[in-house]
Amino acid sequence: MTTNGAGAPAVVLLSGGLDSTTVLAYAVDAGFVPHAMTFRYGQRHAIEIESARRVARAHGVRDHIVVDIDLRIFGGSALTSDLEVPKDRGVDEMQRGIPITYVPARNTIFLSYALAWSEGLGASDIFIGVNAIDYSGYPDCRPEYVAAFERMANLATRGAVEGTTPVRIRAPLINLTKQEIIELGLRLGVDYGLTSSCYDPSPSGVACGRCDACRLRLEAFARAGAGDPVRYA
Amino acid sequence: MTTNGAGAPAVVLLSGGLDSTTVLAYAVDAGFVPHAMTFRYGQRHAIEIESARRVARAHGVRDHIVVDIDLRIFGGSALTSDLEVPKDRGVDEMQRGIPITYVPARNTIFLSYALAWSEGLGASDIFIGVNAIDYSGYPDCRPEYVAAFERMANLATRGAVEGTTPVRIRAPLINLTKQEIIELGLRLGVDYGLTSSCYDPSPSGVACGRCDACRLRLEAFARAGAGDPVRYA
Repeated sequence: MTTNGAGAPAVVLLSGGLDSTTVLAYAVDAGFVPHAMTFRYGQRHAIEIESARRVARAHGVRDHIVVDIDLRIFGGSALTSDLEVPKDRGVDEMQRGIPITYVPARNTIFLSYALAWSEGLGASDIFIGVNAIDYSGYPDCRPEYVAAFERMANLATRGAVEGTTPVRIRAPLINLTKQEIIELGLRLGVDYGLTSSCYDPSPSGVACGRCDACRLRLEAFARAGAGDPVRYA
Repeated sequence: MTTNGAGAPAVVLLSGGLDSTTVLAYAVDAGFVPHAMTFRYGQRHAIEIESARRVARAHGVRDHIVVDIDLRIFGGSALTSDLEVPKDRGVDEMQRGIPITYVPARNTIFLSYALAWSEGLGASDIFIGVNAIDYSGYPDCRPEYVAAFERMANLATRGAVEGTTPVRIRAPLINLTKQEIIELGLRLGVDYGLTSSCYDPSPSGVACGRCDACRLRLEAFARAGAGDPVRYA
């Protein structure tokens, strides 16, 4: 792997899911000193925050903040309301339009907070686990979106006026399939048993196995020829 | 004035200060149905939130939400910490570099929330009272920043994928001096006695008259040949 981090601080957005955990391992492997940021945003699968804590500990992050924000005020997403999470859909069906689990402007809000923290830390690099291949149709997971956020960020902050270090939004998974992400993580020694992907887990954190996130994950583990270590209902 | 709003919903970022209040009046005058959004972000001058409520009522907004976010976790600004607010500075001195009252990525976070809400409301227009002339040296008050945010926003949301209404970030004050802003607001019937600009008000809300915000405001009222109706210590 690359080692261009060379001890530099970086902010890593960490949900506790498969993608962001792989990104954290990638950043560590590249030599960055990771500062992890997780959001409690009213998601029904808040159990993922416990996963994020376990993952952060396992990967030796420098510090980990859990930011309370309330995206429920905006409504409209099955992830933050009583709307039903879709189950048992095939991948073709998932990729038809934007699913009801989409949360408006979520990645923009997450990256904005990461930008604020990175400025305080003096970090140039912000890592996010977005992925445009098996991306469930979310607009804010596409490469052109990430590039536009980076351009905006480089005009938004102190560095833009003072000519100091640029902001880099790093999305190392953006062109990988879910299978390739798992293969990368396994090479980097990720313990996927610590992670949590399910949109609709049981109160004790057992994955449903039927929502889009579970189905994409299970199929990708199967393709990678590996067993998924998390528990399913 | 223009009337291109024609009954369309718009999100208006409303701090309760002079600029955002003028913007609200501008949006109403242009025919928009305003939905006002205010942030309680750990600012020492939280009294401005009461001003925002008064202003929202006076201008008949459709609804007004006060969003709790905590920017203190990032540190580094006199507006959100015990660092001393600078006093008695001349305008030249204010415009030398980025002042300690700068809050990292604040407008980016505010606009991101506004973007999320606008998507839920089906609103294309987001109004913000940034101003690049008497702007106190904040990087996220410049036209190139606003344009870059708009470009990003148009790739971030449902409309980007579904080809529906574009997002417009409207910053009608961006090229006005503070004097011109006050003149515009007075023409639109704004009662500036409802507003609050001071960075360091007394607990009962009396403006200090000496911070950068007070000094810019007082000087602009004097140039406009008008009296500032708020109380000063």
